Amino acid sequence: MSVESADPLHADLEAETALAAQLFDALRAGSRSSLGVTRASYGEGEQMAHDLMRALGRRLELEERIDAAGNLYLTLPGADRGLPAIMTGSHLDSVPDGGNYDGAAGVVAGMAMLARWRRAGRRPRRDLTVMGVRAEELSWFPAPYIGSRAAWGLLDAEALDTCVRPDTGRTLARHMAEAGFDPDSVRRGVPQLCAADIECFLELHIEQGPLLVQERIPVGVVTGIRGNLRYKNCHVRGQYGHAGAEPRRSRRDAVLAAAEFLGRLEAMWLDHESRGLDLVCTVGQCYTDAKVHTMTKIPGELWFTMDIRSQDNDLLMQVDRALREIARDIGDRRGVQIDLGAYTNALPGPIAPAHRERLARLARECGIAHVQMASGAGHDSAVFGISGVPTAMIFVRNENGSHNPDEAMDIADFAQGLKLLVAAVEDIDASH
Amino acid sequence: MSVESADPLHADLEAETALAAQLFDALRAGSRSSLGVTRASYGEGEQMAHDLMRALGRRLELEERIDAAGNLYLTLPGADRGLPAIMTGSHLDSVPDGGNYDGAAGVVAGMAMLARWRRAGRRPRRDLTVMGVRAEELSWFPAPYIGSRAAWGLLDAEALDTCVRPDTGRTLARHMAEAGFDPDSVRRGVPQLCAADIECFLELHIEQGPLLVQERIPVGVVTGIRGNLRYKNCHVRGQYGHAGAEPRRSRRDAVLAAAEFLGRLEAMWLDHESRGLDLVCTVGQCYTDAKVHTMTKIPGELWFTMDIRSQDNDLLMQVDRALREIARDIGDRRGVQIDLGAYTNALPGPIAPAHRERLARLARECGIAHVQMASGAGHDSAVFGISGVPTAMIFVRNENGSHNPDEAMDIADFAQGLKLLVAAVEDIDASH
Repeated sequence: MSVESADPLHADLEAETALAAQLFDALRAGSRSSLGVTRASYGEGEQMAHDLMRALGRRLELEERIDAAGNLYLTLPGADRGLPAIMTGSHLDSVPDGGNYDGAAGVVAGMAMLARWRRAGRRPRRDLTVMGVRAEELSWFPAPYIGSRAAWGLLDAEALDTCVRPDTGRTLARHMAEAGFDPDSVRRGVPQLCAADIECFLELHIEQGPLLVQERIPVGVVTGIRGNLRYKNCHVRGQYGHAGAEPRRSRRDAVLAAAEFLGRLEAMWLDHESRGLDLVCTVGQCYTDAKVHTMTKIPGELWFTMDIRSQDNDLLMQVDRALREIARDIGDRRGVQIDLGAYTNALPGPIAPAHRERLARLARECGIAHVQMASGAGHDSAVFGISGVPTAMIFVRNENGSHNPDEAMDIADFAQGLKLLVAAVEDIDASH
Repeated sequence: MSVESADPLHADLEAETALAAQLFDALRAGSRSSLGVTRASYGEGEQMAHDLMRALGRRLELEERIDAAGNLYLTLPGADRGLPAIMTGSHLDSVPDGGNYDGAAGVVAGMAMLARWRRAGRRPRRDLTVMGVRAEELSWFPAPYIGSRAAWGLLDAEALDTCVRPDTGRTLARHMAEAGFDPDSVRRGVPQLCAADIECFLELHIEQGPLLVQERIPVGVVTGIRGNLRYKNCHVRGQYGHAGAEPRRSRRDAVLAAAEFLGRLEAMWLDHESRGLDLVCTVGQCYTDAKVHTMTKIPGELWFTMDIRSQDNDLLMQVDRALREIARDIGDRRGVQIDLGAYTNALPGPIAPAHRERLARLARECGIAHVQMASGAGHDSAVFGISGVPTAMIFVRNENGSHNPDEAMDIADFAQGLKLLVAAVEDIDASH
């Protein structure tokens, strides 16, 4: 730790890129499932990933801390431990049969960054901490950002007992306890982090959309993280009837009512878009009742989900009111009930302009081809941003989207993202 | 058979109404399933019903015939056996967990009618034949009117080998053979009936829609039987993608494409209705892929069914062309494929005006409250009508629709329908 080098750390990342490639291979080998990789929240695959990072942490002689919710913090101590730390990282769980990079890339990049400091034998001024976040994916427990919200004391106490993992039938609290953590402390809302102690949180993540592929650019600098409204249980209740014998006027057809509702949802989206407002709407699930429906029966019920995103939470709230009004109108006219049910609201994640500008400037200086872009997906960074920590994100190009086994991140693109992260950490550490 | 009575047969049907009630009880007792009654096509429950009718046929000393497809004919011989016979009857199968009356009511009414002739000790001029039709319900084998089409040599040979009962996995031919019948003869399309030998076919059936209940009238005289186009496998193929990160313009959303298609289908229906054209449209099944869809993924596939009915087959063909054009248009604009797949076409069933008028006149003369109405559902009568047999239908009021365990036909309403059937048979037998 005494040998100081004048060369910037980001100028030579070959060894760390190779380390990252090894980590990705080990992650994949340890969590391979029938179609892709599976690292369930508070499950085996996630634990394997945490163990892998802890082992590397020991090799790099980092300080290790695990919080009440099982989040992992690996810290390279700074020269002045009273200064706020620079944090980076992401989550280590995946969707079922997902890809190897969503989440993991951010933790691997953080570890590679710390490895670079160690290889240089340099000590930063500030603590540099990589966080391995628990339970970011919604597939396992129906609540967003469980790990990072727990870290900030923001997880609703009841989520611990009402969220049940569909594959095990057990609650979040039970899974947390079984994995060796402390759900009671999480339930009490005790924050495990303090904003005053954190200089910034930088998250590297694969892009989940196609924009960087379409633009042929390896790196994105994120301008903002969309929040969302999620409706898991929209339900249309009409009445079953005979397909040939029931006159149109006495029908209460759930499918045609839903079709009108979805048409009006889309019309509203187009209208907002034409006014330059940020909105994205997805109806991912839509189904009649497989146990009851037939070709020759008027459909009496239909269920659907909605995922509505915007960088503007006020707009999301307006959209909710408008959709409920549309549901009432269609329901009244058609003699059906369209019940949108409860939503969950993940707030938009603020990105700190100073850090975004720093990332863009460093990318230019380091010759990293990049574009500035919104994040359509939510990320753990959003929770840090909401909690008052200056936050920024680096996207790495990725083909075929995320949450599927075909995720394809080129290691050369990852190396560009890592270079930007290393440059940013060094720059922030040196400033002030 | 020598005691002739001057009183019309329909004036006293008390004993036959009681017989019918017993038959309904025996049918229900013999085919009770977890939720309702189940009389599978070429299955146990259907065979039980046939055996019940055969036993009654022996008691009434009727001639019994069973054709190659297993259809049952019970005949009270007429004085002049060269005259064309009067036929009545319906089917004896039910949907899974269906009601006790759909189909069975028509066979029970026919048997009660023959019992009335026997009790009066009268011999008709013409043969009076009650037919117990096999396999009318679509739930078991995916082909309409199997029994009656086989009787008329109209069942496609390949249906015998391609139609598979989902609960057994065995083909129609195999089931027919196992039940003791002759699928090879059916495959050769040998007609088991000859139109020249049949004066008319009268079918009594419960109403499957709500009109008689809404109008508070026990009996309907049918004006025509709607034909249908059925699309079992409409498929929208778009592309899965990330719900937040994929821009609207590059989405290929199967659900929103389907919603537009269904909206335009309904608009076309309304337009036809406003022009006085007979059309009924039902999308009974509509679903994304339960194995793949999630709330946070753009839906890449959706399936739906369509059941479109009209008394006018040319109109059905026009509708098919229009829907395929709409599917192309939407598909092109949205970058999805909307494939309506193949349809089956059941032709509309012609009702003989003379017989319809006779039923209406007799109902007036007998003081039976009735209304004239279209049959929205298809019936075996349609196959007789298409085959050149003058055909008419009597509907009996029924609550809660059909094809479900809640079918509720009042025996007093049945008695009114039976009275009309008995009056009609006696009137037709006496005429010419």
